[in-house]
Amino acid sequence: MTRFKLIIEYDGGPFCGWQRQATGPSIQQRLEEAVARIVQEHPVVQGAGRTDAGVHASGQVAHVDIGKPIAPEKLRDALNFHLRPDPIAILDCAPVPADFHARFSALSRSYVYRILNRRAPPALLAGRVWAVERPLDAGAMAEAAALLIGRHDFSTFRASLCQAASPIKTLDRLDVRREGEIVEISAAARSFLHHQVRNMTGALKWVGEGRWSLADFAAAFAAKDRRRGGPTAPAAGLCLTGVFYPPALTGTP
Amino acid sequence: MTRFKLIIEYDGGPFCGWQRQATGPSIQQRLEEAVARIVQEHPVVQGAGRTDAGVHASGQVAHVDIGKPIAPEKLRDALNFHLRPDPIAILDCAPVPADFHARFSALSRSYVYRILNRRAPPALLAGRVWAVERPLDAGAMAEAAALLIGRHDFSTFRASLCQAASPIKTLDRLDVRREGEIVEISAAARSFLHHQVRNMTGALKWVGEGRWSLADFAAAFAAKDRRRGGPTAPAAGLCLTGVFYPPALTGTP
Repeated sequence: MTRFKLIIEYDGGPFCGWQRQATGPSIQQRLEEAVARIVQEHPVVQGAGRTDAGVHASGQVAHVDIGKPIAPEKLRDALNFHLRPDPIAILDCAPVPADFHARFSALSRSYVYRILNRRAPPALLAGRVWAVERPLDAGAMAEAAALLIGRHDFSTFRASLCQAASPIKTLDRLDVRREGEIVEISAAARSFLHHQVRNMTGALKWVGEGRWSLADFAAAFAAKDRRRGGPTAPAAGLCLTGVFYPPALTGTP
Repeated sequence: MTRFKLIIEYDGGPFCGWQRQATGPSIQQRLEEAVARIVQEHPVVQGAGRTDAGVHASGQVAHVDIGKPIAPEKLRDALNFHLRPDPIAILDCAPVPADFHARFSALSRSYVYRILNRRAPPALLAGRVWAVERPLDAGAMAEAAALLIGRHDFSTFRASLCQAASPIKTLDRLDVRREGEIVEISAAARSFLHHQVRNMTGALKWVGEGRWSLADFAAAFAAKDRRRGGPTAPAAGLCLTGVFYPPALTGTP
């Protein structure tokens, strides 16, 4: 039995999210079907993050246990072959120690949220951005974002359905920068609450539009109340860009 | 009667190209239909470049003559409204002098061709790149590309269906650079032959793979024979990024 670590890119648009659902095709289901076709085994493909419907990934990580001997490069290529024509690609496949766990071993997760800030709707970036017409002040958004760095109670940005035991999280990074028409929000933390990045983004957008002052934003955060937190940014703008592990766990076994 | 200059972004994937065709929906047709719905007139929307089926644009330019008085911002917003849900966006709309012609006044056109150079197929960039698995030597490609700069007979890179009067063109720029997994080819010229950028890209790919030496590439170019020119790169990787005009023609009339 070998445990393999997979690095996965996908367009979340056509899927009901990472996790298997009765309601439609999921990325996890597609991967498990591909594994079954290759090795005639039916292991669970365990992801690092359960991305929502419509959320993309350029660096999702998962692990899977396979009994039949197979070279990692061969598994990667066979998965890519069997995943066609779904927009899911295995970027890397490597054997890892049996105590590596894609979800529980992760030290840090990175997300990028992209806003297309212009009058015209997206054409080339349709389904990949949040289209915001009103000009955003990225400097004001960056100032507000800095207030969230560190260990805090993130209840204001926590989805009501969130199953986490505690609303306390440590946010390592929340950068806002503008590049032309794109306002990009980069977030990193060991883990996030459900919808946390999309909810933080929704509130930052209100700051960027001038609807909220920095003080309004700070007061909403301090209220520890989702009803004070502003809107949830749409799924399409969000991308899971990377998941990071202790080096000892990702070397060869 | 006012002549308007439009700057247009589109995903070429769902269209049979810029130009009206009996075979399927074109970007030109969609624009003309939108104009007709807004002003109940039926002018031609004249584009700067007739992009092929599947070719994208982030900066296509067109002009259109409208009799009914309408503010340019209102025309832009109304076009964007009526173009939904097609992946076509009007980025800018401005009145121009009556002697401005999107195609014939253009001084320069810019294209970018993107190759995704990795083992895994594209997921997030599906339909936007040429997927090339074999590692490409972008340095060798850049060296070959430099041979094409200037005024030359481009018959080797001219489609058999090309209707241009002469195969002589002046290529102002042909840069090749790698950024991570992407190899990007940027081309600029007053005008291009039919399929010229895609044919130059196909030959550069052969150089990048080591299938052709620099001397092989030079010999193919010197042969002035399409049959010696290598493959045509697929449409999906190509994007018309900009069209440039004499400043006197694009100021307000």
